[in-house]
Formats: sequence, structure tokens, C-alpha cells
Amino acid sequence: MDLWLIGMGTGNPEHVTLEARRALREASLVLIPRKGAGKDDLADLRHTILRACDCTARVVEFDMPVRDDALPYADRVDRWHDAIAVIWADAIAQAQLTGPVALLVWGDPGLYDSTLRIADRLTPRPRVRVVAGITALQALTAAHAIPFNTVNGAVTVTTGRRLRVHGWPVGADTIVIMLDGDCGFRTLDPDGLHIWWGAYLGMAEQVLVAGPLGQVGDRIVATRAAERARHGWIMDTYLLRRGG
Amino acid sequence: MDLWLIGMGTGNPEHVTLEARRALREASLVLIPRKGAGKDDLADLRHTILRACDCTARVVEFDMPVRDDALPYADRVDRWHDAIAVIWADAIAQAQLTGPVALLVWGDPGLYDSTLRIADRLTPRPRVRVVAGITALQALTAAHAIPFNTVNGAVTVTTGRRLRVHGWPVGADTIVIMLDGDCGFRTLDPDGLHIWWGAYLGMAEQVLVAGPLGQVGDRIVATRAAERARHGWIMDTYLLRRGG
Ligand SMILES: C[S@@+](CC[C@H](N)C(=O)[O-])C[C@H]1O[C@@H](n2cnc3c(N)ncnc32)[C@H](O)[C@@H]1O
Ligand SMILES: C[S@@+](CC[C@H](N)C(=O)[O-])C[C@H]1O[C@@H](n2cnc3c(N)ncnc32)[C@H](O)[C@@H]1O
Repeated sequence: MDLWLIGMGTGNPEHVTLEARRALREASLVLIPRKGAGKDDLADLRHTILRACDCTARVVEFDMPVRDDALPYADRVDRWHDAIAVIWADAIAQAQLTGPVALLVWGDPGLYDSTLRIADRLTPRPRVRVVAGITALQALTAAHAIPFNTVNGAVTVTTGRRLRVHGWPVGADTIVIMLDGDCGFRTLDPDGLHIWWGAYLGMAEQVLVAGPLGQVGDRIVATRAAERARHGWIMDTYLLRRGG
Repeated sequence: MDLWLIGMGTGNPEHVTLEARRALREASLVLIPRKGAGKDDLADLRHTILRACDCTARVVEFDMPVRDDALPYADRVDRWHDAIAVIWADAIAQAQLTGPVALLVWGDPGLYDSTLRIADRLTPRPRVRVVAGITALQALTAAHAIPFNTVNGAVTVTTGRRLRVHGWPVGADTIVIMLDGDCGFRTLDPDGLHIWWGAYLGMAEQVLVAGPLGQVGDRIVATRAAERARHGWIMDTYLLRRGG
């Protein structure tokens, strides 16, 4: 069985590449999660993309299983991935496949995403093809029209949790934070740091704030809370640079 | 003046996004560097993309100025960027602009690219729009069908030169190396390291090697030399992971 994990970009239906569009046209079955944490807008986006790409595959929606919050974190995630793999396997078994199975993956399938790890659980092992997609990293730097790195500099891509636990990565001059539900930049000494923050990147709802962290940090915290209340959900990413 | 820096992806003409295609259709003038270090294939790729996107803009090719190797590195790059900005300004002044000026930028305009810094030198300052593109980071992980990061882990994106000078970044478990003309991984203790290497990613010439660094390092060095000799140029990127 061929399983294609297709990067869909980060909210703008036009982030889709010509390669992704072609793959969607060649697929025989597309699996779509019905919702992820109240994000119905995001399931709709997948349908918008399928229409825009003239995808004629059979589309099967599935409900995401619930995570068992009683389990320790690693077990909880493991069991959850197992449960998703079972759902995929069932949907695939029920379909009369004449070609590849496709999944539209938010952003790029390689970046902070579990789809590849879930695919690994299928038996027999499918042949996996990954179609690269625009990530939140590019969506952020494009929205602000800034370089990702300083000239010949390094960039550390990390999570809000790691930032809170480990602090500023040793030796880094630029860091990009994803998966941060709690404005982890507040734990840093803002002196000399510049921040470029963006929420709903690539989408009509996009909001950007940039400036010296000491001057705009509070505004980002307030904006994030207000936008989150307004939409019922939020996705945000930010880049921090020393002496930026 | 509107200046659009459009990410074109990393060699596969189908890396282009629908957003990039639309932008190319709306542009009035497209500037194309005639060659970058003997890479005529790469100028051709830009023309292939313009055709595939039904771009009707006027296309002006320009010769890249030569870098003055007598100058110290920073000055040399500075002067070179100044010279490129002058060439752009002339080409733009000569064109009867009826809309935006577009540049197709390799990969994503934010990642190890000087286009944004050259655009900053134009007077009057243009309104710059960046259209995100697929980078070598995504092209590499997609080709190998591997995740960029470990579960909730951090990734450091850095250069071959930094790797040679600073060694393995403190605390990192995954690093991705770009701009490495000299297989900098040879300077590392291979114990416990896994490498995923790729050259000409996304292109027909694509070559991949992966495995424990101690086992495949020499093969990568030899493959890189042979491919480079065969094509006259090479672009490669690799990801290293501890305990991968
Ligand atoms: C589970 S990860 C998935 C990342 C995705 N695979 C990618 O390539 O961008 C989700 C995180 O990505 C970031 N993110 C994704 N889309 C975003 C968007 N449109 N705006 C802001 N942040 C976004 C946020 O930091 C969010 O917490
Ligand atoms: C000047 S940087 C430009 C990067 C580009 N802006 C991007 O987003 O990928 C050039 C470096 O990118 C990497 N690279 C770009 N395209 C590549 C490809 N098709 N295959 C392998 N490496 C590539 C190599 O490490 C190369 O030295």
C-alpha cells in the first residue's frame, strides 16, 4: 500500500505546492480527521484544498480518538497514536483502493507532527512518500519579511516547554518557538532580545507583532489572549533574536 | 515600488506553491540572475517555472557581479550586495513598470539567502512581500521520509563552517547542516550519530545516503566528490541525530 503524507501549508490554501496538488489528483483515498480540539475551521480548510486541487479521490472523515489523560505523557501519546493507526487501517481496509492513500498534513509532515510515527504502526508497513509543505517557520518569516538566520548564523527551532525548562539554548543567536501555549518568552530576560510573533499565519485572521521583547512582550500576551477568546483557538509561533 | 521575493523551492519545479504561481502571474517584471557559479541548469529552472506558471511578465536577465576576493569576507559580501542592488535598480528603472517586480528565490527567501538584505539597499525602499517556499530542510526530510525533530525535541539549523569551528551545538540532539562545501561531519566523533544526507534534493539528480555516521560517512564523502565531478556543481544538506 502506498501512503502519501502531503504537506498542506499552514492555513493559506495557496500554500499548497504543485507537487501536492498533483499527488491529491493521483490519490485514490483521502483520510481527513473530523476535528482537532474544536478546530472545525481547519477540517474545512482541508476540503477547500481538495476542491481547489480538483481532487477526485474518495474522502473518508474519521473522528480523532480521545487521549487518556490518566496515563503518563509518553504512554498517553503512544496509545493515542496506536488508536489513530487502527482507525486508518479500518478506513483503508473498507475502501476499494485503486491507488495511493493520502493524508493532508498541516504545514510540513516532518515538523512537530506525529503522522510519520503513526504511519510506522501500520502492518504491513506502507510505502511512505512525503510531499514537503510550507511550515510555520517559513510562514512566520515571510509574514514579517525577515530572514530566518543572521548572516551565516545558526537557528534553534524548539518548543515552548523546552524554552521554559531549559531557558535560552546555549550559543544560539536566533531561536524559533513552536507549540507554546503559554507565552514562554516571559521567562526570558528581555534585555537585547527582539521578537517577531505571529498567529494564524497565512490565514485571513493573521496577526503580527514585532519589536524589542521588553517593549512588546505584554502586548503579545494580551493580543494572544484576546484572539484566542475571539476565535476559540489559536496557533502562534515566534522568532527571538539577540541584538536583532 | 512593490518587490516580491518569491520562494521557488529547491530544484523541483513542482515545489512552487499556488501562491507563488499567482504572484508570478501578477508580476510586471521578473529579474533572473544569469548564472550563479557555473549553475546554468539553475537559471533554466527559473525559466521552466515561469513557463509552468503561465507568467506573462517581462523577464530581464542580469549577470551577477563578481566578488572581490581581495577584500575581507564581510566587506566583500557587503560590496557584492551593493553591486547587485545597483543592477536591480537599473533594470527596474529601465522597465516600464505597471505592477510588482518579482524575484524567484531558491528555496525560501528567509533561509541562508541574501535577497532580503539586497532589497534593503534599494532607494526608495520598496514594499517587500515574501512568498514562502519549500526549503532544503523540508526537501531533505521529505526525501528521506523522516521527522525533522525528535518528539518535542529541538533542532539546530547551522552551517558547515560553524560546525567545523564550534563543533556539535551544546544540548542539541538534532542538527541540520547547510552551506557545507567540505563534509564538516568528518570533524565529529561519529559514535552514536546517525546521518541523513541528500544532494540535488527535489531534482532528477537527487542522491540520498543514510545510516550510522561511522558506517556511511566515507561513502558520503566519496559520493559527494563523484557527483560533483559529474555535474560540475553540487548542493547538499544533511541531518545528524544522536541515537537516531
Ligand atoms: C503540531 S505543530 C505542527 C507544525 C506543522 N507541521 C508545520 O510544519 O508548521 C503546531 C505548531 O505549529 C505552529 N503553527 C502551525 N501553523 C501555524 C500558523 N498558521 N500560525 C502560527 N503558528 C502555527 C504553532 O506553533 C503550533 O503550536
Ligand atoms: C545559499 S543556501 C540557500 C537555501 C535556500 N534559500 C533554501 O531555502 O533551502 C544554499 C544551501 O542550501 C542547501 N540546498 C539548497 N537546495 C538544495 C538541494 N536541492 N539539495 C541539497 N541541498 C540544497 C545546501 O546546503 C546549500 O549549500
